[in-house]
Amino acid sequence: MKKILLVFAIFGTLACNHAEEQSKVEAATPEAASEEKDSLPNFGIVIHGGAGTILKENMSDSLEQQYRAKLEEAVRAGHAVLERGGTSIEAIEQAINIMEDSPLFNAGKGAVFTNAETNELDAAVMDGKTLNAGAVAGVTTVKNPIDLAIAVMNRSEHVMMIGKGAETFAKEQGMEIVDPEYFYTENRYRGLQRVKDSEKTQLDHDQKTAFLDPFIKDSKYGTVGAAALDKHGNLAAGTSTGGMTNKRWGRVGDVPVIGAGTYANNKTAAISGTGWGEFFIRGVVAYDISALMEYKNLSLQEAAREVIQKKNVDLGGNGGIIAIDHEGNVAMEFNTAGMYRAKMNKDGALEVAIYGEK
Amino acid sequence: MKKILLVFAIFGTLACNHAEEQSKVEAATPEAASEEKDSLPNFGIVIHGGAGTILKENMSDSLEQQYRAKLEEAVRAGHAVLERGGTSIEAIEQAINIMEDSPLFNAGKGAVFTNAETNELDAAVMDGKTLNAGAVAGVTTVKNPIDLAIAVMNRSEHVMMIGKGAETFAKEQGMEIVDPEYFYTENRYRGLQRVKDSEKTQLDHDQKTAFLDPFIKDSKYGTVGAAALDKHGNLAAGTSTGGMTNKRWGRVGDVPVIGAGTYANNKTAAISGTGWGEFFIRGVVAYDISALMEYKNLSLQEAAREVIQKKNVDLGGNGGIIAIDHEGNVAMEFNTAGMYRAKMNKDGALEVAIYGEK
Repeated sequence: MKKILLVFAIFGTLACNHAEEQSKVEAATPEAASEEKDSLPNFGIVIHGGAGTILKENMSDSLEQQYRAKLEEAVRAGHAVLERGGTSIEAIEQAINIMEDSPLFNAGKGAVFTNAETNELDAAVMDGKTLNAGAVAGVTTVKNPIDLAIAVMNRSEHVMMIGKGAETFAKEQGMEIVDPEYFYTENRYRGLQRVKDSEKTQLDHDQKTAFLDPFIKDSKYGTVGAAALDKHGNLAAGTSTGGMTNKRWGRVGDVPVIGAGTYANNKTAAISGTGWGEFFIRGVVAYDISALMEYKNLSLQEAAREVIQKKNVDLGGNGGIIAIDHEGNVAMEFNTAGMYRAKMNKDGALEVAIYGEK
Repeated sequence: MKKILLVFAIFGTLACNHAEEQSKVEAATPEAASEEKDSLPNFGIVIHGGAGTILKENMSDSLEQQYRAKLEEAVRAGHAVLERGGTSIEAIEQAINIMEDSPLFNAGKGAVFTNAETNELDAAVMDGKTLNAGAVAGVTTVKNPIDLAIAVMNRSEHVMMIGKGAETFAKEQGMEIVDPEYFYTENRYRGLQRVKDSEKTQLDHDQKTAFLDPFIKDSKYGTVGAAALDKHGNLAAGTSTGGMTNKRWGRVGDVPVIGAGTYANNKTAAISGTGWGEFFIRGVVAYDISALMEYKNLSLQEAAREVIQKKNVDLGGNGGIIAIDHEGNVAMEFNTAGMYRAKMNKDGALEVAIYGEK
């Protein structure tokens, strides 16, 4: 458990200079089969499990293996949905559910603690075909907040629901309700105590320090998300999070803010973000990538680079996004040391990665 | 009181074909003074008090006069701040406070009731100079939610706070706290009963009807907002609302979603929206206007027209926006029958309007 804490507790550079060996599994198909595949409709999925100062030297082999295995399980689950003709919404739901149910990521089961020692979860989803969307904030009893966001989108006339009201809707819809105790994990609880201790020390010096310290900064991070293109040509994106360790005053980050942490539009791309939420809201990050594609004819990669490497950095924020466009091109862009991520295309080519590659 | 209800209770066309006499007060300055004014820094303010099926034939002269007088009072208060060199944030706060404190508008004192017969208020603000922003959702005890949004922006590291947590922050900041009873108005309470009765009848026929009926649709509306350019060249926008009559499940509209109902950027414009919130979120309306200006070099008027008259309509939504750009150009665009609105420029030229002019 302490090892997981270590990952978040490092004080280090944010530069992306750590090369890594990526666990690529190339699809070994004969030429004929490959040609046949080219004529199939394009599809693919890309996921993230949070971005931050994730450095190889602070990660045990065993823990790294756990992250890689869970990312692979999630991306494969989403890919399987797409392969059998399922929708992009179903694919991202599957992938996100697996990460929500794992204590490794700050979403669902692994959600961080608020200052009041509760777990308050946010999630959002957007359908690129209809531009319909769903978002929830501050829920404490819903096992899989992404499912609730999808229900808000598909089964209500609304886009956003918060707090107890959102939980009432979840019950009415027959969703899986858990005791708030379900979200207790020793690791996250210790994380809260550590941030509180650190805050206590630092408040004596300078209230702002808490927000300039990379360790505390990382306590803002941790989010899971997925973006997919299905065989029907439809895009979808979804994001789920426990928010920021030690958050108070009902603080909500970018996740449930459509256009900030989540956006999808069949004309452009499906995007899910992870990072310092306040800066993602102020930069309208996810929609900004779409707008640069639609209005300035930038490619997804160009737009993602402009927004994450330039605009987000200039504003003083950090984090990353994963995205897939209407042609199946994928972007996994981040300005932090690392981002848990994985992608899988229509040929079954899998890539799982954690650290920076530049 | 019944007359106010009537304004919202009309079943009519959404076409903007009602001409009106605008109460323009042209600044009667001698030529020399006028020339002197041209050399002064540009500044100005524009406000709205909600959009919907507002038709002259359903409005008594006395009620119309009340709306016009309150709009004029609000826009003049904001203008006075700008004239004496105050910031755009201070100007919009002043203007919005006056509308929040009036029972005429669905914000602050005049907030509509939720299904549970409570009043839950949302607000947001954005500073075009710093791209800093503040938003609150679901507060029940804060007299002026726009002040709380400004406090979140200026006195916390966060952008968005919701529910009880946001109220705790408000108390810590020494803001004016009121008993929830403060927001009780007979008119709004009757409005809720009327919507509930209507819903009961209509649910027997078709659950969707409730959302297609112009009367019910109007129960989604009502928001106040302001956008200003100050003498220092800085833009700001703010929005405040009681949300949708009969709302349940902690429903939140576009107001506290930065980029949807509120956005400001010194490079482009300051924008505040009012309308069917779900469609404003899905369309990322306020930021979309800014993006069209920044990325496609559209003027504010062209961008506002594109987003409100085309994109919002195509998506199935309705409503309007008020906005001011970095040169002081103003847009007041809506696709509903009317929008309560007023503007005042650096020369003191005042315009107050309610109905469509096209």
